[in-house]
Amino acid sequence: MKQSKLFMPTLREVPADAEVKSHQYLLKAGYIRPVSAGAFAYLPLAKRVLNKVEAIVREEMEAVNANEMLVPEILPAELWQRSGRYATYGQDLYKFKNRQERDFILGPTHEETFTELIGNDIKSYKKLPLLVYQIQAKFRDEGRPRFGLLRTREFIMKDAYSFTADYEGLDQIFDQMEVAYRNIFDRIGLDYRVIVGDAGAMGGSDSKEFSAPAAAGEDTIVYSEGSDYAANLEMASDFYERVDRSAEKKADIEKIDTPNAKTIDELSALLDLPADQLVKTIVVADPEGQLTAVVTTGDVEVNLVKVQNRLGVPEVELADEGLVKEKLGASFGSLGPVGLPEDVQLLVDERAADLVNFAAGANEDGKHYLNVNWDRDVALKDEQVGDFRTAKEGALAVDGKGKLAFTKGIEIGHIFKLGTKYSKALGAQVLDQNGRAVDMIMGSYGIGISRLLAAVSEQKADEKGLVWPAAIAPYDVHIVPINLKDDDQANVAAELEEQVAKAGFESLVDDRKERAGVKFADADLIGLPVRITVGKKASEGIVEVTLRESGENFEMPASEVAAKLNDWLQK
Amino acid sequence: MKQSKLFMPTLREVPADAEVKSHQYLLKAGYIRPVSAGAFAYLPLAKRVLNKVEAIVREEMEAVNANEMLVPEILPAELWQRSGRYATYGQDLYKFKNRQERDFILGPTHEETFTELIGNDIKSYKKLPLLVYQIQAKFRDEGRPRFGLLRTREFIMKDAYSFTADYEGLDQIFDQMEVAYRNIFDRIGLDYRVIVGDAGAMGGSDSKEFSAPAAAGEDTIVYSEGSDYAANLEMASDFYERVDRSAEKKADIEKIDTPNAKTIDELSALLDLPADQLVKTIVVADPEGQLTAVVTTGDVEVNLVKVQNRLGVPEVELADEGLVKEKLGASFGSLGPVGLPEDVQLLVDERAADLVNFAAGANEDGKHYLNVNWDRDVALKDEQVGDFRTAKEGALAVDGKGKLAFTKGIEIGHIFKLGTKYSKALGAQVLDQNGRAVDMIMGSYGIGISRLLAAVSEQKADEKGLVWPAAIAPYDVHIVPINLKDDDQANVAAELEEQVAKAGFESLVDDRKERAGVKFADADLIGLPVRITVGKKASEGIVEVTLRESGENFEMPASEVAAKLNDWLQK
Repeated sequence: MKQSKLFMPTLREVPADAEVKSHQYLLKAGYIRPVSAGAFAYLPLAKRVLNKVEAIVREEMEAVNANEMLVPEILPAELWQRSGRYATYGQDLYKFKNRQERDFILGPTHEETFTELIGNDIKSYKKLPLLVYQIQAKFRDEGRPRFGLLRTREFIMKDAYSFTADYEGLDQIFDQMEVAYRNIFDRIGLDYRVIVGDAGAMGGSDSKEFSAPAAAGEDTIVYSEGSDYAANLEMASDFYERVDRSAEKKADIEKIDTPNAKTIDELSALLDLPADQLVKTIVVADPEGQLTAVVTTGDVEVNLVKVQNRLGVPEVELADEGLVKEKLGASFGSLGPVGLPEDVQLLVDERAADLVNFAAGANEDGKHYLNVNWDRDVALKDEQVGDFRTAKEGALAVDGKGKLAFTKGIEIGHIFKLGTKYSKALGAQVLDQNGRAVDMIMGSYGIGISRLLAAVSEQKADEKGLVWPAAIAPYDVHIVPINLKDDDQANVAAELEEQVAKAGFESLVDDRKERAGVKFADADLIGLPVRITVGKKASEGIVEVTLRESGENFEMPASEVAAKLNDWLQK
Repeated sequence: MKQSKLFMPTLREVPADAEVKSHQYLLKAGYIRPVSAGAFAYLPLAKRVLNKVEAIVREEMEAVNANEMLVPEILPAELWQRSGRYATYGQDLYKFKNRQERDFILGPTHEETFTELIGNDIKSYKKLPLLVYQIQAKFRDEGRPRFGLLRTREFIMKDAYSFTADYEGLDQIFDQMEVAYRNIFDRIGLDYRVIVGDAGAMGGSDSKEFSAPAAAGEDTIVYSEGSDYAANLEMASDFYERVDRSAEKKADIEKIDTPNAKTIDELSALLDLPADQLVKTIVVADPEGQLTAVVTTGDVEVNLVKVQNRLGVPEVELADEGLVKEKLGASFGSLGPVGLPEDVQLLVDERAADLVNFAAGANEDGKHYLNVNWDRDVALKDEQVGDFRTAKEGALAVDGKGKLAFTKGIEIGHIFKLGTKYSKALGAQVLDQNGRAVDMIMGSYGIGISRLLAAVSEQKADEKGLVWPAAIAPYDVHIVPINLKDDDQANVAAELEEQVAKAGFESLVDDRKERAGVKFADADLIGLPVRITVGKKASEGIVEVTLRESGENFEMPASEVAAKLNDWLQK
């Protein structure tokens, strides 16, 4: 391809509102342009990267017998009303009416669409398992789109859905998809971690998230420095072994005045006790208004996602202080597990559940109890105890094999075991081996295709611009003649172009009438893996090769370039 | 691919609301399913056809140096307000608001989007010409979606846009695109005609439409039986050579009573004159309310599109009879060109303009004039005369080389010279060679990708089902073992699958436990080009080959199949 025919508008300045590296360089190098907030045009170079990513995804999906399909982007609201998500999905859902005033949405994901399609046509377990996927624009009306391709309102996603008659089938496909995803991200050349994800949002039971570590990431990934363990901060667990302290002597419970101890630090100082020997109590409310008191040791934070998953509710939030005072008799800072009203549930973090003779709020403003003990002072059942704390950096990982470290990550893929949530809601049943109608078991599997461009850019770009791995570079080789009016340079450039094509690679030829400095700066900016500069030594048949990622730079005979391409461009 | 893993739900019955062949078979053969009225899911077989069509389109677009891009489907209303189309596009435009209550549309086409993108980044004629395209879902809120993939609300379109600094550049790209389009439709294996289209709808000056003849087509194509001439009925012209009859004797004009002659037939009978010696006059109104009387001979129909294009207005319609009576003094049936009010314009078809001593309505109910003559009785300028009639089947074509015949056609592509309509509206200018800012010259070029599936099906399907040309068939070869429990059959089928793959072709293997009759019926229905039946003679290494389109059927050694594939599957 001749660069003069390519729409590749590089910029000298980066627009001021581009906050992260990928956004800056993708704009500056002429890969993307905004059309409205959070909706980007992919210019020719970016579209070529997308096409290459999509080809890799298709190959790996075919390898696991996934069927490619394509469903409409406009969906009747009725479909989402039946699953319940029309009401619960929130403001991110684009809603509109057609000319007959019927309600529609723009699909942000397609669990309902595929459940309905497969459910209408598949009626027997004999036709299962079935795995389908598509690559297509998706829509989410983000409140605050930003960070370029990282948080957008319209984005390209590969979404896949599995349908099986039993959970063994789901587990098998889930595992195959994990392998397929690893293959995809390995081939693309991304650094990524497979982490324990929060399946709750999709209504599923189990999930794994693929996250690309990068400073611009919006998620905090917690990983073990000594093992493969990794999880989202919301799901991460540190190591704790329960201790049986029932034989220890229990002191008498005693109520004391603590008028100036509203925080754990203040209480810790007042009582001269370390924070991990105190408990703190917060009260959360679910969407139905049910209150739950959550008790942890004073040195950790309550993890609301863990609480919500244990309660099996879509969301919990800190309860209103006025309501708490009315119900429990005290404001925040003086709450505790002793004497809770019957209609307030109790959950206790395992570390707090193992304390004896500990201090806790007395549910009376300015008062605490000393020497509280479980069972004697507060009835506690095993099912009320669990891990409800947010893991801390430096703690031992849950597998006991190393310390937890924190890093920022970009979610690039997520696979979910959905179970029967959607098949039950939409009536997608098959007859099983015994002729009984059963809900199909489902999984759903997503990759953020357009977001991958940002993730790769965040990980690879350097101070000169973008750096594309060979597998997804828009072109493999950038041929840069310094002066095309020089016959030697023109001839060598033309020969190189032909040789590269014959070797099965794609080249971009900078045939513009620009100064060498401009050509080099643009070449570095757009980031093709191999640059071949054709300059004065073209008369001797010598060209200069620059490998973008390593920065290696050397002269060699033009005639020997083609034979080296496979080494330089390992995919 | 094993058929047991493929989501390919064939039906025994065709849904009652499927009116045309392509809709019926695409449903029955498990290619498409509706998700809402006019919005279809493409199941795996259809998606494979789409992918093959798209690959051909991409190759031919690359061949003319078109740059692939991808723009958002959600567009800010502001972009279409600036071009004026937000108000004029009509009810087909999907409109919605985002969470900030800003107005958006779903793109039905992208002249504005690309004009804005290119206009923002290209500032000099030196960067032109530029040709960009994309393949993407488009949206039109059709009042009455029907005929399966022929009239839908969401469809896949290849749209391309050219930007040049001058009209010579536009003409050159327009011609290259016509060649590219011919290549695409030739490679796909469609029968099509290139016809003179109506450029008015896109605001352009010149257009060619690619139409696939088929009974289900919604357009009438007029073509010459003796030449390449073809046009939409709205644009078709028959042959007429103007005659100078100024030397003929003009009789005195005379007003007569014609109380019972309201139609041309009645008038013709009353006066004993053939209809082509009378004129009829209709009055049309444009959107501003301007009235125009259009005069033709009595034997032809007025063509409103020709009238509208001559007047340069977006639309004309028959004027209200009450208004006409008020303005001209008579109702329909007694109208004529003599004594028109000054604010009513006049257009005269060339055949009517050459009449002498003709009869016309007197603008007085129940009265006609005899012996009307132009100039003497009605002033007539050359610019008021033209072709304003609808061509008739059997008339000589405008090129004088054969009779006009009519057929129904499906619009599959359309290329437009747009000129500066959009660049002017959106301020997309470049500096020309003299440093002057000039509006860019544009063209736009569309292919209905998803509609092509329907067009091919309409042309090729037979009484047994779909028939795919080799270039776009979902798989090349259908291997149909009768009984996979028979080891010979299983082995031969497996060998064939391997051979076909080695020869570079794709096969679908019917590994289902179904009766032979069911397998054959499904194979005919889905329409792969080559079927290889592996039956009892597998023990002798003999298989049966059936070519879907010709119906040819013969036995041959399985080992010789691979060598014949290139002959059977010419693409």
